[in-house]
Order: sequence, then structure tokens, then C-alpha cells
Amino acid sequence: MVKLNDNYLKLPGSYLFSEIAKRVSAFTEANPDKKVIKLGIGDVTLPLTKSVIEAMHKAVDEMGAAATFRGYGPEQGYEFLRKAIAENDYCARGADIAPDEIFVSDGAKSDTGNIGDIFSVDNKVAVCDPVYPVYVDTNAMVGRAGDFNAETGMWNNLIYMPCLEENGFLPELPKERADIIYLCFPNNPSGVAMKRDELKKWVDYANENKSIILYDGAYEAYISEEDVPHTIYEIEGAKTCAIEFKSFSKNAGFTGTRCGYTVIPKELKVNGVEVRSLWNRRHTTKFNGTPYVTQRAAEAVYSPEGKEEVKGLIKYYMENAKIISDGLKKAGFTVYGGVNSPYIWLKVPQGMTSWEFFDYLLEKVNVVGTPGSGFGPSGEGYFRLTAFGSRDNTLEAIDRIVKTFEQ
Amino acid sequence: MVKLNDNYLKLPGSYLFSEIAKRVSAFTEANPDKKVIKLGIGDVTLPLTKSVIEAMHKAVDEMGAAATFRGYGPEQGYEFLRKAIAENDYCARGADIAPDEIFVSDGAKSDTGNIGDIFSVDNKVAVCDPVYPVYVDTNAMVGRAGDFNAETGMWNNLIYMPCLEENGFLPELPKERADIIYLCFPNNPSGVAMKRDELKKWVDYANENKSIILYDGAYEAYISEEDVPHTIYEIEGAKTCAIEFKSFSKNAGFTGTRCGYTVIPKELKVNGVEVRSLWNRRHTTKFNGTPYVTQRAAEAVYSPEGKEEVKGLIKYYMENAKIISDGLKKAGFTVYGGVNSPYIWLKVPQGMTSWEFFDYLLEKVNVVGTPGSGFGPSGEGYFRLTAFGSRDNTLEAIDRIVKTFEQ
Repeated sequence: MVKLNDNYLKLPGSYLFSEIAKRVSAFTEANPDKKVIKLGIGDVTLPLTKSVIEAMHKAVDEMGAAATFRGYGPEQGYEFLRKAIAENDYCARGADIAPDEIFVSDGAKSDTGNIGDIFSVDNKVAVCDPVYPVYVDTNAMVGRAGDFNAETGMWNNLIYMPCLEENGFLPELPKERADIIYLCFPNNPSGVAMKRDELKKWVDYANENKSIILYDGAYEAYISEEDVPHTIYEIEGAKTCAIEFKSFSKNAGFTGTRCGYTVIPKELKVNGVEVRSLWNRRHTTKFNGTPYVTQRAAEAVYSPEGKEEVKGLIKYYMENAKIISDGLKKAGFTVYGGVNSPYIWLKVPQGMTSWEFFDYLLEKVNVVGTPGSGFGPSGEGYFRLTAFGSRDNTLEAIDRIVKTFEQ
Repeated sequence: MVKLNDNYLKLPGSYLFSEIAKRVSAFTEANPDKKVIKLGIGDVTLPLTKSVIEAMHKAVDEMGAAATFRGYGPEQGYEFLRKAIAENDYCARGADIAPDEIFVSDGAKSDTGNIGDIFSVDNKVAVCDPVYPVYVDTNAMVGRAGDFNAETGMWNNLIYMPCLEENGFLPELPKERADIIYLCFPNNPSGVAMKRDELKKWVDYANENKSIILYDGAYEAYISEEDVPHTIYEIEGAKTCAIEFKSFSKNAGFTGTRCGYTVIPKELKVNGVEVRSLWNRRHTTKFNGTPYVTQRAAEAVYSPEGKEEVKGLIKYYMENAKIISDGLKKAGFTVYGGVNSPYIWLKVPQGMTSWEFFDYLLEKVNVVGTPGSGFGPSGEGYFRLTAFGSRDNTLEAIDRIVKTFEQ
């Protein structure tokens, strides 16, 4: 008889964003006259930019003519895109990454979810707490996380690294040795960035312990401070211990267009075996390349015009972030993030849980955010708002919040 | 210390199509004056059709305007596409499949590669021999295939079902009980189809043994004979034992556009658990949806114009198949496939291995095909040619073959 992967059955039922959607839809059904503003999910709202749209139209035309039609491309991505990434995101920043160390994909969610395939189930994994749920769930799915304890909200074989107000929302080096360490900076959900000297500690730890850092840099484009690295490969020693994930979703608005990439340097080896060769095998066996049209769209992001347009998008969202941050402070909230990140992480009023604050905000102010506890037990008492809404909605939402909470 | 997934290290080094590419490029470098015609890889050559191109342009424009921009879509695919699939590929054929039993993806390679995630490693898997390498390799990657024996070319924990001239290239029910059975019909590489009553045997076997059939229908559009089912769900009982994979690559030419889908009926349960719920969890956790533009492209395939255009593509390739098939017969070859499939499966001349014939054809006739042994040990002595080339190249290649081999 066929047997299911029982690890799936251990996953706690309701996924964070479906629970949110359920509560929101129950509220709007009961209150059809209220205008609910959503600052919850990390989805962009501005359209694709001019250069990207032009590149896509051109590529679509190519696909419609026999002479320029493209069938299967290289699974790892077209050379034109891998070169643009290597030059702009790495070499220009002093990080010497070659095109064949870059694997183009359909996005960082797939890549951070699939990367576990090439590692033994028998590895000890460390995650920040709170954390992007994909890291935890995908480890749980292969049994690497052990069993789920519904009371603590934790898996018994994961190392949780609490990121709290006390430590500036930055994880501390784990006492127990971790083989695989997920780091995402600028961080989702807290919006906090990690500076160069802080990240150096992690690189040193990983090299000393022969651990691997899985570095999610999806929010890199929002970095505004000088001493925050734009790639982990700016840090000496990172090439022998780190895999980096990047995405076009949050800089160029590709959430519905789907493109990202993974970098695995040739120097990253385990017992003399290039980790890159395993990912290459996975990528060529279980994936058949990102659409040609999408890769041309991503290439356009690196054109001079494309770069200016991305700057415009980031500026818009970061102005939203400032509006949210300033407004919340005015209303008396303690607020983090929003400086190198589109996420604002606020402390919920004393005596309330994250979910209670969620309900309160939804019912009294008609604004939707994300309860911190949805990202892990240490997220309890916090709440995430995102800067990805339209300007008008952001202004209105914050205006309502200020009016409600201002003393 | 971090540990790699050792199963990857057991995979035999050189992937079939890279070995072919290597030999072809060595030959062309040494013989720059020769015109080499490739009828090897299953990649289409005709461009995307008019309806598809128009739908893509329209969708690109939508992505460029704030009012119509689409960010994250449902991971399972937009309702408009899932409905079109359900209506056209299932309901219209008397197979009652609902949109929420359909999961849109970036292609059948990803889906057939990833489906193993939701099953225990501790399942016995049966594959046809010869077979599409992805089924075997992805099982090997999680350890389900056991160890590779370089001498036999087989994994010691897989059940191989030989598909030979003697059995009409149709597998026989395995003697040892199989938990998971991969079937691909019309078949890659043999080009042979399975008729309704034959497929019924497999559905009955699976229901009796509580096994699951993974049915790859990527070549369905090429079916020309009445008694060949277009979906496994035409067969009574299939909903309680089968998962079906479909692709837009071979019907609408989406090899570089990337779209496919997986069907898991609600009735398919293991110990009362809906298999669909596990795939839904995987799909929402490790995948973030197919690009909006691509989904609109796929939708256009089901418009009245799109359907006519697909018919045109299939007609063109099937005429190629007939040219290849007739020519090879004229040249004295024994030939299979090419009737319900774009693949022609021929017996190599006596005394030659598949790879020897490959080299001979490349060097003497300057035509590239695929050696049967690359698809598994039982493919030895056979050779695959594809009908996906241009008409001119197909005619010229066959002309050369006839001239060389005709007695």
C-alpha cells in the first residue's frame, strides 16, 4: 500500500495568511459598508515599470516568430541574465561572483523552499524567531524539524534564535551547534537590517563550525544605510559558507511575474564536493527554466532606465514606510524597521496578544496587518505593517490609527 | 558539520542530453562544413500561435497599469485557467474534474519531479524501461531508488517494467507489488499509446493494491486513434488511484513559456487523508504561482481560435512524423510510434548498440537522434527521432538516411 509522507500530517493546520483572509472576509461580510485597508501581506501594488513592460512585449514578439522563437532554455537561466546579475549585483559591489555560480529561478520562495533537498535530513537547522514560515515548514516536510509542539508553537528538532527588543531583533550565535542557519536581512518580518561587522560574526561561526548559511536577501533593494551589506559575499569568508537567495519581487514588483535567483559559489564545498554541483543537478532535473519572457523582463531591471525605475519604486514604498512609522510613533507606539526595509514592526499595546490587536485593528480601525505570533512564538506581542500599499490607502490607514490611539 | 544529501552523489555522472550535446559539438568543431540536423531533443520549433501571442501582449499591458496589475496570484493557479482546463480537458471528455482538483504549475517536469515529496521514502516505485529520466532521478535523489548498479544501469530498489518489441512496448503488471507506478502514455520515448482496456488493467491493479498511478499525459494532444484515452480519468476507478500530469509544452509549444498542471481528485485518499491536501500544502509552501502572463497565454489555448491553432501545430508535427516513419521504413528500418505521438522509435541495425548508431548517424549522415539506452537498459538497440524539427530539416534528414541505408 502506498504510504504518504507523514511529516506533512504534523504541520499545524491553518496557514497564517489564510487565517487572516478568513477573519477579514468574515468581517467585511458582516460590515459591507466599512472600507477595509490591507497593509498585511508583503505584496507590491505598483505596476511593472516601462522598461520591463517594453522588454516583455519585445520578448513576446520574438516568441511569435519562427526565427526568434525560444523553446527550452538552459535550466540555470540564459547567459544574458546571469551575466547582468553577476555584473550588477555582485562585481559592482566588489563581490566576485561568476555567471555560472548563479541559478535563475521562478522566485525566492521556491528556492528557499527547495534548497533543503540537497542536504541530508540529518542536519541541525537554526532559524530566527520570528521567521518567514517557508523555512520552517519546508524543513518540517522532510522530517528535519522533528515534531511540532502545539503548546509552545515550536518544532522539537529546530534551533530557534529569538529576535527580540532586548537584542535589537538580531539573533545570537546558537549555543548548540547548527549545521544549517537561515538568515534573512533586511529581515522579514521585523524589518531590521544586519550590519557588516555583525554579519561577519556569522560567517566566521559558519566557517569554524563547517555550517552553511542560507542567506535570504529578498529585501536588499530597501537598504538605505551605509554599513549594511547588499550581499553576504561582501563579507570575507562568505564564499566558503554561504548560499544567497535574491528576488525580483520586492525591488521590481515581480510578485506576479516570478523571477529570482540563487548563488552558490564554487568555493562552497562539503568534504571536497561542490555544493553547487548538487544544486545544478536538482535544478536541471526538477526544473525546466524560467520563461524566456520573464528572463528578458528581469534583464531590463538592470538597464540604466530600469535601475532608475526601481529607484522610483523603492522611494515610493519607503515614503509609505516613513508615513507609517511616523504616524505610529505619533500615536504612541514603539516602532522598529522601516529604515532598510518595507516592513514596520510595532509593539502591540500592553495587555493584548498579537491576534487580539489584529482583531481590534480590523474591527475598530478597519486596517489589516499581520500578527507577529504568526511568524513564531517570539513574534508574540508584535505586529507587522507593510509599506506596499498605495499612498492614499497608507495615509488613510495611518490617519485612522493616529486618531484612534493618540492620547 | 553540515551533511549533504548523499543520494545525489550516487547519481551517475553524465546526463543523457549533455552527453549528446558534447558529442555533437565535438563533431561540428572538427567538421565545420557539415550541416548537422538535430532530431534529438523533444523541443518544439514552431513559434507560439496568434491567440497566445495576443493574450500575452494584453496581459503584459495589464501588468503595466496600476488598475490591472497583478501581484501574487493563488499558488494553485487563477480560477479562469483552472476552469478552462476542467471544462475542456475533462468535463468535455466525460471526466468530471473540478477546478479545485487542478494545480497549475510551471510545467510537467517540475510536477513529476516534485510529486514524490508528498509520499514516504519507504514506497516501492515501478517505472517503465525505457523511461523519461526525471522519474528515476528524482526518486534516486531522496533515496527511494536505493543504489545504482553501473553494470546493469539499474537502481536496486526500483521495479523496472521492460517495454520491448515482444510486448508491444507496453509494460506488464509487476509481479512484485508496486506502491507508486509511473506511466507515460503516449509514451516518451517509444511513442506507443495505451488503449482504454489496457489502461483499465492498471487502474484495477492500483485500486486492488492501494497503489497510486502517476500518469504523465504530456503528449496527449498527439493522440489520433479512437480507442486511446485522452485522460486517465476516462477510465472507471481512476479517481481513487491516479494523479495526472499535463503540459502546454508539446501541444501549444510552451517549452520556453513554462506551464503545466497536475490533477489530484478529491476521491484519491490514503488512510482517509486526501492526497490533494498534501500537494496543496506543498504547492502553497514551495511554489508561488505561475506568472500571470503565462496563465493568460495558457487560457488562450482553449479559445476557439487557440484550439484551431493547436490543431495546426499538431498536424504539422504529425506530418513530420509520417515523413520520418515512411522514410525509415523505406530505408529498411523497423519503426514504432509516430501515430499517436511525435516520437519515432526505431530498431538500430543489427550488431550496433544505440550509442554506436548515434555516432554512425552523426558522422555519416550528420543527423542527431537520441540513443535508446539513454532512457534505460531496455532501450538498448533502439533509437528515438522526434518530429519537432522544421519541415525542411526533417525532409533533408530523412532523405540522407534513406540514401545511406536503402539497399
